[in-house]
Amino acid sequence: MIMKKLKLKTPVLLLDEEKCRRNISFMTEKAKKHNLILRPHFKTHQSMIIGEWFRDQGTTKITVSSVTMAWYFAKKGWKDICIAFPFNLHEMNEASELAKKVNLHLTVSSAETSRFIEKYIDSEAGIYIKTDTGYRRTGVPFDNITEIDKILETTTKSKKLHFTGFLVHNGHTYQAPSPGEITRIHEDSNRRLMRLKERYKEMAGVTGGAGTGGGEPILSTGDTPSCSISENFSGIDEIRPGNYVFYDLAQHHLGSCKTSQIAIALAVPVVATHAERNELVVYGGAVHLSKEHLVLDTGLQVWGQVVRIHPDGGWSDPVPDAYVTKVSQEHGILKCDNEFFGQIRIGDFLGILPVHSCLTADLMKGYTTVDGEKVDHLSAISPE
Amino acid sequence: MIMKKLKLKTPVLLLDEEKCRRNISFMTEKAKKHNLILRPHFKTHQSMIIGEWFRDQGTTKITVSSVTMAWYFAKKGWKDICIAFPFNLHEMNEASELAKKVNLHLTVSSAETSRFIEKYIDSEAGIYIKTDTGYRRTGVPFDNITEIDKILETTTKSKKLHFTGFLVHNGHTYQAPSPGEITRIHEDSNRRLMRLKERYKEMAGVTGGAGTGGGEPILSTGDTPSCSISENFSGIDEIRPGNYVFYDLAQHHLGSCKTSQIAIALAVPVVATHAERNELVVYGGAVHLSKEHLVLDTGLQVWGQVVRIHPDGGWSDPVPDAYVTKVSQEHGILKCDNEFFGQIRIGDFLGILPVHSCLTADLMKGYTTVDGEKVDHLSAISPE
Repeated sequence: MIMKKLKLKTPVLLLDEEKCRRNISFMTEKAKKHNLILRPHFKTHQSMIIGEWFRDQGTTKITVSSVTMAWYFAKKGWKDICIAFPFNLHEMNEASELAKKVNLHLTVSSAETSRFIEKYIDSEAGIYIKTDTGYRRTGVPFDNITEIDKILETTTKSKKLHFTGFLVHNGHTYQAPSPGEITRIHEDSNRRLMRLKERYKEMAGVTGGAGTGGGEPILSTGDTPSCSISENFSGIDEIRPGNYVFYDLAQHHLGSCKTSQIAIALAVPVVATHAERNELVVYGGAVHLSKEHLVLDTGLQVWGQVVRIHPDGGWSDPVPDAYVTKVSQEHGILKCDNEFFGQIRIGDFLGILPVHSCLTADLMKGYTTVDGEKVDHLSAISPE
Repeated sequence: MIMKKLKLKTPVLLLDEEKCRRNISFMTEKAKKHNLILRPHFKTHQSMIIGEWFRDQGTTKITVSSVTMAWYFAKKGWKDICIAFPFNLHEMNEASELAKKVNLHLTVSSAETSRFIEKYIDSEAGIYIKTDTGYRRTGVPFDNITEIDKILETTTKSKKLHFTGFLVHNGHTYQAPSPGEITRIHEDSNRRLMRLKERYKEMAGVTGGAGTGGGEPILSTGDTPSCSISENFSGIDEIRPGNYVFYDLAQHHLGSCKTSQIAIALAVPVVATHAERNELVVYGGAVHLSKEHLVLDTGLQVWGQVVRIHPDGGWSDPVPDAYVTKVSQEHGILKCDNEFFGQIRIGDFLGILPVHSCLTADLMKGYTTVDGEKVDHLSAISPE
């Protein structure tokens, strides 16, 4: 039945539109409630079609992680785009062209980069200062006032650039041992950002008004764990979560979502069964799920959790104790209990909730809704 | 200079054709020396162009890991193809059509699958029995004579199928602590295969002669570590290594190759520098390299090793103590010593030797030779 409707043959990334729209709605409402600008990160889904589901709920500003991705969404009519990645000097021409069409915001981690942009850009753009409040991946440390001053010296004197605000990503919430710790990281970070706002309160500009605009800098934060869990956004202006559009097992493990909110599942056919060790071998491995794994509280390393695919193309709650316990290039090894093992035959399709939905979506290059509709993903576009 | 010649802007997978052809030649010579059929696995490169480099050295039989991949190479004129993955029942039509055009060999891990193929295939094909001599990923355990007999009952009676041989992949060599242990796994496995050959010595058929052919089954083995390191292939007929076409850091760590043999490097631009911790941030992360990591003898987890890119598009030996120590979706964090850090500026391109070349190539969807030529990869083709 399922095979007829969806024509499943090989691994396919199923997308539950209803769950996905509900996730989009959840964060839209949360942003409204806290009076925040929602500038969702589109790097998780990278889809024009899914982008429209955000637009349906009022989204007008978006975040992306590359110039290529910015162009992809600009072509679909998005007009306010932040590239939240330290600007790559080699893409100056592409960014400059794009800035003629949309309100573009570039992100810088250094005065060196901001000076380069000021010199070579030939249109107007906003500048977010990537700020490090504790993650230590990249960004100007929040207390490095010298470097921030240097960046602002460039934007203030510029006839092309204006300072938009401070942008932070607290990726260390992904390593937090508890929701309480996520909240603590989030609040500490916000307090640090507020001190910056106080110091630079009249340094921000606006589109159409380069240089000092006398405006307040936007404080922009937004990892999915913090945005999902916290109810304190005091002092913050903007959030940029992305993963919540689908969620995944990693988010569930952190306490950001329920498994019932996970909006994508990789459908995979069983190709072998090994009764002597309760293992199912599926066509679905590292080139489909990615190598991202999760260590459960029991110590078990997993690359996904098993669900049953319903005849209507949706899927069940997770099958208890059934996990992907190993992946190689195309093989996935599923470990399960006797009862479930006994119900599965070679040729059955099972679903896998991914550990990291961004990477799985990027690898699968597209989605199939439970109604059998195809949904685009930027990674299906071949590099030039 | 490098930027002009190669037009580097964003992450690009560089391919050194000379190193690659030398790797192909190395295994070709080794197979000749040991009187082995070389049926290289094309899942590492997945490229029609690189496939021709094998053909230049006399390769006529190939291995692939999916029906889609088999079709890709069949279109380029390959006529003897083994799909070394437990056959996916849902691709029967595609496999059956392909079997009309080429000498196709399917792989089965169970009598259930072999009976299904016999029932539904409408052309002639060979059957390899996927045999487990110790890896325990999938395959019929070498001592499960009952199951092997059942599979052979199907092929023997069939007018369409013939038994080709026993196929093993000793993936556990990738976890071996030393080259000596790799050799031990390889030799143990070969001895087990030889016992099967002795037992079933007149059960194999030949193309054009379905059913019992009175021939000897082919013993096919071939993980890259064993094929690179071992000099004992006694009793074995065929090898199917794949990774050696590029090699990678994981193979180097196992002792299968020198770093100078690694034929691909991801070229990435530096987008930020952090002097306070000797870290370089590059545009190049999990969507380029994959999340495959390696634990060095020092205990350090790494996602790649840094090389310098030469103006001619080639690259240097690894920079001492310079590794990718963290990846997120698009970010790579490189840790290095003071001396190297001091030489690098934002905007410089660096090279990364990948931990697992198969996954990096799959993600990058194509290669650029050091002469600036584009080389295809199957993953650039969008799913239907």
